[in-house]
Amino acid sequence: MAQLIADKRDVEFVLHEQLAVDSEYAGGPYAEFKKKTIDLIIGEARNLAVKELYPLQKVGDEGCTFTAGQVTVPDGFKRAYDLYCDGEWLGMTDDPDWGGQGLPHAVAMAANEYFYGACNAFMLYNMLSHGAAKLVESFGTDKQKGQCLKQMFSGKWSGTMLLTEPEAGSDVGALTTTAKKNEDGTYSITGSKIFISGGEHDMVENIIHPTLARIEGAPEGTRGISLFLVPKYRINEDGSLGEFNDVVCTGIEEKMGLHGNCTCSLTLGGKGQCIGTLLGEENKGMAAMFQMMNEARQMVGLQGFANATASYIHALNYARERVQTKGLTDPAGAPSVAIINHPDVKRQLLIMKSYVEGMRSLIYFGGLCKDRIHASEDPEVKATYAELLEVLTPIIKGYITDKAFEVCSHGIQVYGGYGYVEEFPVAQLLRDCRIFMIYEGTNGIQSMDLLGRKLGMKKGRPFMAFLERIHQCISDAKKVEEIKGVAESLEAFYTRYTEVAASLSKHAMSEKVSDAYAFSHPFLEVTGDLTMAWMLLWRATTAAPLVGKKKKDAAFYQGQITTARFFIESLLPAAQGKLNAIESCDGAVTAMDDAGFGSR
Amino acid sequence: MAQLIADKRDVEFVLHEQLAVDSEYAGGPYAEFKKKTIDLIIGEARNLAVKELYPLQKVGDEGCTFTAGQVTVPDGFKRAYDLYCDGEWLGMTDDPDWGGQGLPHAVAMAANEYFYGACNAFMLYNMLSHGAAKLVESFGTDKQKGQCLKQMFSGKWSGTMLLTEPEAGSDVGALTTTAKKNEDGTYSITGSKIFISGGEHDMVENIIHPTLARIEGAPEGTRGISLFLVPKYRINEDGSLGEFNDVVCTGIEEKMGLHGNCTCSLTLGGKGQCIGTLLGEENKGMAAMFQMMNEARQMVGLQGFANATASYIHALNYARERVQTKGLTDPAGAPSVAIINHPDVKRQLLIMKSYVEGMRSLIYFGGLCKDRIHASEDPEVKATYAELLEVLTPIIKGYITDKAFEVCSHGIQVYGGYGYVEEFPVAQLLRDCRIFMIYEGTNGIQSMDLLGRKLGMKKGRPFMAFLERIHQCISDAKKVEEIKGVAESLEAFYTRYTEVAASLSKHAMSEKVSDAYAFSHPFLEVTGDLTMAWMLLWRATTAAPLVGKKKKDAAFYQGQITTARFFIESLLPAAQGKLNAIESCDGAVTAMDDAGFGSR
Repeated sequence: MAQLIADKRDVEFVLHEQLAVDSEYAGGPYAEFKKKTIDLIIGEARNLAVKELYPLQKVGDEGCTFTAGQVTVPDGFKRAYDLYCDGEWLGMTDDPDWGGQGLPHAVAMAANEYFYGACNAFMLYNMLSHGAAKLVESFGTDKQKGQCLKQMFSGKWSGTMLLTEPEAGSDVGALTTTAKKNEDGTYSITGSKIFISGGEHDMVENIIHPTLARIEGAPEGTRGISLFLVPKYRINEDGSLGEFNDVVCTGIEEKMGLHGNCTCSLTLGGKGQCIGTLLGEENKGMAAMFQMMNEARQMVGLQGFANATASYIHALNYARERVQTKGLTDPAGAPSVAIINHPDVKRQLLIMKSYVEGMRSLIYFGGLCKDRIHASEDPEVKATYAELLEVLTPIIKGYITDKAFEVCSHGIQVYGGYGYVEEFPVAQLLRDCRIFMIYEGTNGIQSMDLLGRKLGMKKGRPFMAFLERIHQCISDAKKVEEIKGVAESLEAFYTRYTEVAASLSKHAMSEKVSDAYAFSHPFLEVTGDLTMAWMLLWRATTAAPLVGKKKKDAAFYQGQITTARFFIESLLPAAQGKLNAIESCDGAVTAMDDAGFGSR
Repeated sequence: MAQLIADKRDVEFVLHEQLAVDSEYAGGPYAEFKKKTIDLIIGEARNLAVKELYPLQKVGDEGCTFTAGQVTVPDGFKRAYDLYCDGEWLGMTDDPDWGGQGLPHAVAMAANEYFYGACNAFMLYNMLSHGAAKLVESFGTDKQKGQCLKQMFSGKWSGTMLLTEPEAGSDVGALTTTAKKNEDGTYSITGSKIFISGGEHDMVENIIHPTLARIEGAPEGTRGISLFLVPKYRINEDGSLGEFNDVVCTGIEEKMGLHGNCTCSLTLGGKGQCIGTLLGEENKGMAAMFQMMNEARQMVGLQGFANATASYIHALNYARERVQTKGLTDPAGAPSVAIINHPDVKRQLLIMKSYVEGMRSLIYFGGLCKDRIHASEDPEVKATYAELLEVLTPIIKGYITDKAFEVCSHGIQVYGGYGYVEEFPVAQLLRDCRIFMIYEGTNGIQSMDLLGRKLGMKKGRPFMAFLERIHQCISDAKKVEEIKGVAESLEAFYTRYTEVAASLSKHAMSEKVSDAYAFSHPFLEVTGDLTMAWMLLWRATTAAPLVGKKKKDAAFYQGQITTARFFIESLLPAAQGKLNAIESCDGAVTAMDDAGFGSR
């Protein structure tokens, strides 16, 4: 049977050959994770994903039901949830003291690729629970941690993030939910929140809502926001569940996709009975939120990637089965062939492959950065990888989810008319995928983060280190005969990119600031293109010496070289053109006035 | 109230200022259509579209129902259908002898923009009826025409096109439906067809199915395909309806969108009782089909455009209402402003505007070409515009529907989280829009048509004439001070484009044919970019002298100049980069072998 979700060989290639995690982990706190163990873990994840989660994808698309404040998840979700929790997958990378498994992050990313690729709507419940638990772990008092953490990492309780309000989306500072201090030190919370994924459902005993609210009398804007721990059911001193905490689900959204995950509107304290405890310090809610946001953004990148890899595998399988005449490029009467041999279909598959594989390397590498932060005892090393991850985060979230949507659209196109029919899997992957470009900070916000924060952060040191890494990869590749030419092409692009980044950065700090920010998204895009090219060239450099070595894998390794060549020689030139546009930084967007847009 | 569907001012600008249809039509067969009449007609269309069709969009999304061979259209469709037919809109451009209204095509395109933009799923029924009627008009015998045409142009009967079979999609020649000649000259038809839009429904008395089938003993492939007229109910000699013709609907597809239009599977002659009559000559079905296809492809381009314009108007209205702080580009504490003033949102709106307006000009201009073909008595003129339309057709179908999907995705992004919620209109516009890239010839097929047929057709004369027109526009623009610089930028792109087109054309006829066709879609894309730039520069040339003239319209005209500037200076450079990739025509796609793609 053809593979589903992800290409096993490629998953192994990234972990064991490109990143060589085995030798990476040797001697450190992850020393027990040798190749065999890692493969075993991923095999287990694959098994659970294919057998138990993948069947939820279709049934999940039917959606959750909402009746009188209660949300019922789709059939089969609860069973799969229990299996997922029994396998202790929710806290797989977390501290064993709190019930976690202490797995390395790069390995967890591979496991997650299968889980999210099997059913993103299902996994979103877990993603949010994990993010909420990490908030409690980082900012909670001993009491809060003691009451919640084991319950959350085990999945007995789930978690969310109560941030958005109708008038406060990207503009978090505009939120109006209030917190009034009670005599016992707790707070009475009142307000309405929307777009709360997994805000209410029937798979768990209790739901922990980290909630952004404004303490009475706090400063305006983001400086006056605090974070609270608000449970669905109050928690008694002994840890048992107390009375209902007046967090009422008033409805769920009808969405374009991701139907298996309920998007809830919640009213807090409608009866004045919603009690929360402060999580962290007063008025420091935004900083705490950003910590969670950073993890969440990396995970949203993974969500996009997971749909892209699933769409690619489906399209690849289909293109090998579907036989049609080739048309113009064959003489009349030539025999029909599988459409993978038709140039335009093959081009689309190669586009999909290059993005999917570049994304996989980037996502796993992001995990490896976390592992290095965790494993190293050298503060310098910790700082280096923390900074690198800061630079990579908007690329992982913004660029990957943009391109994942494109990849999923190619998936539909390869299927032709069948791609539009919901009986086949690719339409849903596209529909589900579209939200990833929006939530946890729209991709416009990601691009502003890259240009406005990450580029100049700490006098540009992290960004320079990011570039230096790419340049090192190019230098290494130039020494390998088979890919020297491709490496030189990327070097030319790289040089041009550094010039343009410097130029845009200057504009962003000049009176041309608005013009510059009208190019923040194109700049994110070319930065992502550069990052993909880096990952693909790194792969090719790893693969090239192995082509002749293992006969069984020759096509796979050769495919790595051809993929890098395709991306750099056939796709990257468009980015080169974009660099010219960014450099000229034309002020048309600024010049356009509201009335010029027409209508009214 | 804000406008819906399309920008009235811009519709008028294209018709009356850019194309100046009024003076165009003077003295010819369309002489009665003066500005006042045209505006009146479009006003009527707008009225019907906004009041009666637009409300169908949401209800149509609930889908059709299928029970025991019967399809029920969504609530309200039948009422709107009757109003649409009463207004005689179905045959608006057609021969009054058959009940048509004889309207010019450019004007009809404007009316259609409102109709399709209001509810594409509803209009698809009419689009197919019209295409089927045109087939009967072109290839029918007097008897066939007499029996069907008035019924079809009036909408009393509807029409379809029975082409696709499970194993014959893009590969039409693989179809297996058979036709066996009876003694009375009719044919007994047997086979199964899929993906038949409007193949069965309850809005009309009878449905006429032009059907591709293979006469027993006919040659293999496309050379053995004939076209038949197959009614749902047989037609008696006196034109009244006879018995059921054994065309059975076996199901409808569950699709990603366009739910209001049923996509049917039909079984013909399951009981041996399906009778058809030959439409045109034996074994000439493909040629007839291509005639219909050409009209259909232009209409699919309009379908995509209509969703794009609707998405743009919605996003524009929303961006003017939604107030949020601007973030990084404003000092802390600056007041919140409508998000149309945020650089990244404004950039997206300007992308949407430039594509939508370029598409509008192109679509209406396509209509004007038809008008010239119809109105001129000079065979040379007729041939010139027929050829130009041949070149433009793959651009209208392929490029416009690709970009319409992108525009609709920007529409969602401008709405943020609300864009993903089906309560707002933009998600559906994206879902509905995705099929346009596939049906009536996938956009891959369109790109092969451009590269393989249109580029070299008649020794390249039509393609050269297309280029010459663009060059003329650039020359004219260079004489206008305000846009001279932009015109020169486009001229540089134009020159490079012509070199690359020549180079790719050579590769396509060499042993690098497969490499060349792996660039057919990128070539379609840059050709479309050039065409958009042409249309926008033409608009700017028209608008520039008027900026100071009418105070009320100054912002509108200035907006035309700024839009052309934005597209040519900020978006087109990416296409310039793509030209480099196409010119190098790297063989990575050909070099990639099946096994290199991985999985299995």
